[in-house]
Amino acid sequence: MTARNEISVFALGGLHEIGKNMYAIEDANSIIVIDCGNKFPDESLLGIDLIIPDINYLEEKKEKVKALIITHGHEDHIGGIPFFLKKVNVPVYATRFTLGLIELKLTEHKLLRETQLIEIDSKSELNFDEMTVEFFKVNHSIPDCIGVVFHTSQGVIVHSGDFKFDLTPMNNDHSDLHKMAKIGEEGVLLLLSESTNAERSGASPSEEMVGHNIEAAFKHATGKIFISTFASNIYRVQQVVDAAKLTNRKLVLLGRSMVNVVDVAIERGYLNVPENMLIDQHVMDELPPERICVLCTGSQGEPMAALARLSTGNFRGVTVLPEDTIILAAGPIPGNEKNVTQIIDQFYELGAKVIYGSGKGMHVSGHGYQEDLKLMLTLMKPKYFIPIHGEYRMLHHHRLLAESVGVEKGHTFLLKNGDVVDLENAIANQTRSIPVDSTYIDGIGFEDVGDLIMRDRKQLSEDGMLVVVITISKRERKLISPPDTISRGFVDQREANELIRKINQLVKKTISDLDTTDKFSWNTMKQKLRKTVGQQVFAETRKKPMILPIVIEV
Amino acid sequence: MTARNEISVFALGGLHEIGKNMYAIEDANSIIVIDCGNKFPDESLLGIDLIIPDINYLEEKKEKVKALIITHGHEDHIGGIPFFLKKVNVPVYATRFTLGLIELKLTEHKLLRETQLIEIDSKSELNFDEMTVEFFKVNHSIPDCIGVVFHTSQGVIVHSGDFKFDLTPMNNDHSDLHKMAKIGEEGVLLLLSESTNAERSGASPSEEMVGHNIEAAFKHATGKIFISTFASNIYRVQQVVDAAKLTNRKLVLLGRSMVNVVDVAIERGYLNVPENMLIDQHVMDELPPERICVLCTGSQGEPMAALARLSTGNFRGVTVLPEDTIILAAGPIPGNEKNVTQIIDQFYELGAKVIYGSGKGMHVSGHGYQEDLKLMLTLMKPKYFIPIHGEYRMLHHHRLLAESVGVEKGHTFLLKNGDVVDLENAIANQTRSIPVDSTYIDGIGFEDVGDLIMRDRKQLSEDGMLVVVITISKRERKLISPPDTISRGFVDQREANELIRKINQLVKKTISDLDTTDKFSWNTMKQKLRKTVGQQVFAETRKKPMILPIVIEV
Repeated sequence: MTARNEISVFALGGLHEIGKNMYAIEDANSIIVIDCGNKFPDESLLGIDLIIPDINYLEEKKEKVKALIITHGHEDHIGGIPFFLKKVNVPVYATRFTLGLIELKLTEHKLLRETQLIEIDSKSELNFDEMTVEFFKVNHSIPDCIGVVFHTSQGVIVHSGDFKFDLTPMNNDHSDLHKMAKIGEEGVLLLLSESTNAERSGASPSEEMVGHNIEAAFKHATGKIFISTFASNIYRVQQVVDAAKLTNRKLVLLGRSMVNVVDVAIERGYLNVPENMLIDQHVMDELPPERICVLCTGSQGEPMAALARLSTGNFRGVTVLPEDTIILAAGPIPGNEKNVTQIIDQFYELGAKVIYGSGKGMHVSGHGYQEDLKLMLTLMKPKYFIPIHGEYRMLHHHRLLAESVGVEKGHTFLLKNGDVVDLENAIANQTRSIPVDSTYIDGIGFEDVGDLIMRDRKQLSEDGMLVVVITISKRERKLISPPDTISRGFVDQREANELIRKINQLVKKTISDLDTTDKFSWNTMKQKLRKTVGQQVFAETRKKPMILPIVIEV
Repeated sequence: MTARNEISVFALGGLHEIGKNMYAIEDANSIIVIDCGNKFPDESLLGIDLIIPDINYLEEKKEKVKALIITHGHEDHIGGIPFFLKKVNVPVYATRFTLGLIELKLTEHKLLRETQLIEIDSKSELNFDEMTVEFFKVNHSIPDCIGVVFHTSQGVIVHSGDFKFDLTPMNNDHSDLHKMAKIGEEGVLLLLSESTNAERSGASPSEEMVGHNIEAAFKHATGKIFISTFASNIYRVQQVVDAAKLTNRKLVLLGRSMVNVVDVAIERGYLNVPENMLIDQHVMDELPPERICVLCTGSQGEPMAALARLSTGNFRGVTVLPEDTIILAAGPIPGNEKNVTQIIDQFYELGAKVIYGSGKGMHVSGHGYQEDLKLMLTLMKPKYFIPIHGEYRMLHHHRLLAESVGVEKGHTFLLKNGDVVDLENAIANQTRSIPVDSTYIDGIGFEDVGDLIMRDRKQLSEDGMLVVVITISKRERKLISPPDTISRGFVDQREANELIRKINQLVKKTISDLDTTDKFSWNTMKQKLRKTVGQQVFAETRKKPMILPIVIEV
């Protein structure tokens, strides 16, 4: 596909929808993949656990794939890695903290031993045949984030990663502003930059602000404090630790991912927790309530996470009392609003004090606002631009921002999954696409759930099913015993007695009306049963349950 | 239940959750019901169409129920009426416009002829034995809204209806501020007041503001204009009509409810549309695009409504072009955000200009903010207070507002469905509840869908099902033919061949291991099959499909 001196940029995992990131850059010799995220399904995808990018194209060319580079450790950038590596086993390059989170994931999938993990930092330089790759540090809501710079035969391609500009960052962990300026100065052919907050005007507030508000809330609290945030937001976890230290509280961690991620962060030097501050939940009752801070998972309202279980009194051994303070130090991701507000309601019902959301200064976004995005564009001065990581209206607004700071009209590409931008003679074109689809992950046994199964689940979920059992003589094709109809998820069987009596009569009639000559086939009979029963049921109930005829020949 | 001189106030339909309103006031002789709304289910209620209040208590006492009074015509106040009237057929009292919407609904349910509909206005006075009822006009996002005043033997009880204070209302349709002041002056024992916006500070903006912004957008638009709002918000429809008139555009109505409600509004004098302004969609192509305004349903992102179909190019005969302007003159109701933003994305993909939401001044809430709520409380000066119509945190904040304007601590009751407040010797107490549940409406045939069915649907929807068919000899209890397993919505049958082979083997073994002595029963056998197959399936797939053993005796 790629001519000798041509570079192609592939949108594989979510250029067009937040939460499933994967891009690839291909030249004559190599393919380098950037990120491999998963997306969590909405409620319409019944029973689906994860959605990951389609990697068919990469699998077909797997000899050519040289590296998977990860910009940071959020699920929407690392969640697909185990599934990817099972099919395309290449070295994974990431920074130290990001690698820690990837290792947790690979351990869970029993893939750690066979994977080659290579630690990089923002000063690393990698060479893949004719491509050289370097990095720059960016600020985001998780430590150790990078942007990626590809020096290709066509020119420089920059991938921003997820970023904001935080000029008062935690741990003085500044982004590589000067390096970014130098890259831009030397000339960028194509910039890919994230678009999450392209609709929000102004500059994104600093994480520092949240620290002040957490501190104030801790100083006012009288009973226990329960505070929930994303486990991976180690900056915010550090601010909770600092506030607990200041107010002389011990720290209890609740929730598996909180425990795991804090472990990684302490061990690798990204989190500073005073000795003896962490205590086990089993000993917390030995201390007075004003000495306790519980840091827990579940800030998105996940029904099985610690926060939700605390709100309904279902967390064994830990009880929320009326004088306690609950802090949600996170904003709801779009789609999670209802689950989150339900939990807030439940805490109010317990009589607790609840402080929630960015309105109370308990959350700032990790994604840059319009002024941040314009600063990135201005620093990089790209000839061509691809807004990534956002829904269509965000990409659209990001394009307008790019044009406002000097990117030429027509030089911005809004891509869908599978779209390819080809660079030749330093000219970019988007004229082709490769076929891609989402891959649904469900349980552990069978990985790719097909459309047929999804259709069946939808029908079953809305209207239930009717199993019609008939026992028939092989020779005469006559009913041996009365038909039997069983319903599940349709209507209450007691209420439905009359309907089921009618169905059984109809089945009898359908069978006795059957043409039992040579043209007869069992399939025709089943089809006929499905049709006549379906029509009768719809006429009486306006419902379309799945109808499953079971024919036993004796 | 009610002693001679006692009054009881019942929370029956949604004191604790937005969108399903029903309250009842009972004295020794009468029960008066206020509102009968429905609620639309969220996606976790698989296949359910509507949720309505539980009317068992009222049905048991139906001889005592004298009236159903409706405060206004929104679905969450009238949607349950047909289901209620089928069981408790009492006269329905409502204002002229509200009655028009109720008539539409009763016609659909073929109940119009047997229902006694009685038109009232804000000056009406009704007498039910020892209770006298009067009304006051309030502003809201639909015309002809009222609050209700009950003069009882215990004192005055006021129900606010849904309201805001709009001092520059459309059509000069002011609320009865002076009458409300007089009622408060004479003394209110108990106020029930709505809480939707109890968390929003300040005063709610006037509907007038939206009119200015619609006008400005119409003046800027070049191609066709598509504007979507709630059909029942006749004030906003009037502002669209006015802007269309000003910019010389004809009006096309799309969507059944838009056509029906606009019909009612014109016919009853609530909407003023210039002659010849309304045209049929079939002739719109004969006019230049800048002469066309399409007013349509679907502002909440409903997948089958006009706006969604326009956004995907699936509305027969009407096409959105790049130069067209789309206006969403409505805010998303919590839970609908995702559907709405998806439609916005789709219009951007078509290249259209999109103006959406309250951020652009295209929507104001019909529910009063904190200052509005405090004004109602201050006017009424109630001794006791019940915040209604809101989730728990909103009721909680409304209580704080009440206390801030002088309601005594301990005099506010936060109720759940079924909770009862008893008034005796002018003292209010909440000590008892009646059993209530939600009633799920599904299709037309079977009205009350039980928990068992919902559980079945959930299991079917997430993990599908396995039907295990065995044919067994009556006498020897031995398999006559090999077992057969059929899966639906579980895993792809081709992929699952190996698993199904194992299941069939397991079934054979389970049957042959069965104790066929006297203790044997078919139920035990089915249970045993369910258990062994379930364990095997879970071990291999981590899924728990419904397992339905079907045993045929021959």
